[in-house]
Amino acid sequence: MRKIAIIGVGQTPVEEQWEKSLREIAGEAVFSALLDAQRDEVDGIFIGNMLSGMLSHQENLGALVTDWVGLQGIEAVKVEAACGSGATALRMAMMAVSSGEMDSALAMGVEKMSEMRGGEITAALATAADADYEGAQGVSFVALNALIMKRYMHEYGWKHEHFAPFSINAHANAVHNPFARLQEAISEKDYTRARMISTPINLLDASPTGDGAAALLIVPEESLHITGSKGLRPIITIEGSASATDTLAVHDRHDPLWLSAANKSAIRAYSQAGVTPDDIDLFELHDAFSIMSALSLEACGFAPRGQGPRLGLDGEITITGRIPVATRGGLKARGHPVGATGVYQIAELVQQLRGEAGETQVENARIGMAQNIGGSGATIVTHILKAH
Amino acid sequence: MRKIAIIGVGQTPVEEQWEKSLREIAGEAVFSALLDAQRDEVDGIFIGNMLSGMLSHQENLGALVTDWVGLQGIEAVKVEAACGSGATALRMAMMAVSSGEMDSALAMGVEKMSEMRGGEITAALATAADADYEGAQGVSFVALNALIMKRYMHEYGWKHEHFAPFSINAHANAVHNPFARLQEAISEKDYTRARMISTPINLLDASPTGDGAAALLIVPEESLHITGSKGLRPIITIEGSASATDTLAVHDRHDPLWLSAANKSAIRAYSQAGVTPDDIDLFELHDAFSIMSALSLEACGFAPRGQGPRLGLDGEITITGRIPVATRGGLKARGHPVGATGVYQIAELVQQLRGEAGETQVENARIGMAQNIGGSGATIVTHILKAH
Repeated sequence: MRKIAIIGVGQTPVEEQWEKSLREIAGEAVFSALLDAQRDEVDGIFIGNMLSGMLSHQENLGALVTDWVGLQGIEAVKVEAACGSGATALRMAMMAVSSGEMDSALAMGVEKMSEMRGGEITAALATAADADYEGAQGVSFVALNALIMKRYMHEYGWKHEHFAPFSINAHANAVHNPFARLQEAISEKDYTRARMISTPINLLDASPTGDGAAALLIVPEESLHITGSKGLRPIITIEGSASATDTLAVHDRHDPLWLSAANKSAIRAYSQAGVTPDDIDLFELHDAFSIMSALSLEACGFAPRGQGPRLGLDGEITITGRIPVATRGGLKARGHPVGATGVYQIAELVQQLRGEAGETQVENARIGMAQNIGGSGATIVTHILKAH
Repeated sequence: MRKIAIIGVGQTPVEEQWEKSLREIAGEAVFSALLDAQRDEVDGIFIGNMLSGMLSHQENLGALVTDWVGLQGIEAVKVEAACGSGATALRMAMMAVSSGEMDSALAMGVEKMSEMRGGEITAALATAADADYEGAQGVSFVALNALIMKRYMHEYGWKHEHFAPFSINAHANAVHNPFARLQEAISEKDYTRARMISTPINLLDASPTGDGAAALLIVPEESLHITGSKGLRPIITIEGSASATDTLAVHDRHDPLWLSAANKSAIRAYSQAGVTPDDIDLFELHDAFSIMSALSLEACGFAPRGQGPRLGLDGEITITGRIPVATRGGLKARGHPVGATGVYQIAELVQQLRGEAGETQVENARIGMAQNIGGSGATIVTHILKAH
């Protein structure tokens, strides 16, 4: 297997892009990643997307995107794993390049969510859960997360305000990210007084959706040495990449407070990369809801069971903390264009590892991790990147 | 890259399976393929599916299927390329195994279409076309194919009845396929008198949709020699596999009667396999509409431009002809559960190459080709298999 390097990243702002169509948003990210890598060709495109059929009446996204960006003819495909679609697309692109089937590939994610009204979006997002056994009960995606959070607070004795640091940190970092949807700081008072959505999840526990696309251009690392493309920027390689599944329905889990797929994929990624949680300089986690931050930190070995919120309360998740998270705003404040989110996470990691993260640069960041979650923990993908 | 062997195939009947859910149909195909291969484990599952979000309110199919079949934990993902999703899933599975990321994988396709009424299905299928520039005109998928067929008849002087052999051959073969949806022969009179759908496409030019799933278990060929799993059945290897794209909208093509993506992917597959069209013993083509049979035969080098129907009229597409097509009924009579179709085609090729095709066995079949089309020719995947 050939080791993979990420040589170009591109992203659009996450916002309500009423004036742009799905293909235009996707194209912006593609061109931006190609420009960043100073390339104008690629062998294939792997597109993470969850909702285009339901929200934009458009499938066959591979042909849509290659056609629009002027790369007709090359192989292209849409990959879906709910909100984990983005990182899954990166895995497919990696396999294509590491197998030798392609010498370069774009892994991208795109989501156009502002086509429809809120109720339709909520219904579309519910397809990430078990339609027959969860959706049929009328439970929405936020309601499932609310059940998990409530149970967690009961089991471990945390109060709602103890989750505040996750949201406050994400918003503080997003202020400095021009691609973030919510570039505004929030206070603890804002957090505790926010409008309730599904008890105990309030508006500032939940990530905003949005329109957006991000793209990564990958090549075999060996090709960089051959072509002399190693420039002034550090080379960013993928050292670990793993995906795992859990039961689709939360009620089928032996322990609904343990993200077993996060644990499995993280352990495999650590092993591939030859690192432990102590070696990770920053962690772009999947903070779709603040409870997910806590559960991810625990499943990946950064905190003991039930102690995720402690990291926030002790200031360990900020840019200068032990394990910075959501350094560019996370899902919470950068925004969550669902099928694209996993690619935004990796693009942000690359920015950090290149030292291009400006005011939210994690000092001496050399090894970074990203974790993308599809459904209520049903499909989880973990990547570990390293700067050389 | 490791060469891939297909060691297990499974399929469900294509029909309206009102009593079964999406996961149950998918599970049947998985168990059937594992049983055929005499295995009970696999490293990952790649699921071709187009419509589950729109028709069953279910995405995150990777977790749905692994959960249902008792393989929780392993990597799984849905792959979408409209009606070309099935063969695309096989390509993703191949890359996973040939890269060494996995030592075995299931490539499968599943579609549950009888959840909804006809109008909703027609709208969902239209997402394979260009939503902004074709769908917005109110043109359905069959209407797009009708425009292509009409133009073809005009350009090359064919009459509607000249396409009859494609449908008659498919139905004749389906009589002997227990998984086929329409196990009934049709006459030329039936064909010419069938109800008009979208001039000049009538009911017997069009393939029936349906519920169905098919699955293929793949492993590196080298592993068969190591484990001694080479039994009495021939080993079936994938000798060629390629995917290409064209413009999404038909009107954007320089020549709407030339399937450039079929041509590109076929040429690449021929080259990989080291064969020419003359070496192909049978061809499972994508006869969603009879016009597509003609265009595929031409793009793949089996007939000169504009002469596809000649092969049918000369009896060359039957089981004993020069290039047998739709040997198990094709999309026309086996049925077209859209995201699963590409996997059915490969499963049928494997049956033929193993010599297990019963009454429709192509004598001495050793090299077979399958071609799966997504959209009106926008995404096309070609595979060449060989028996050893």
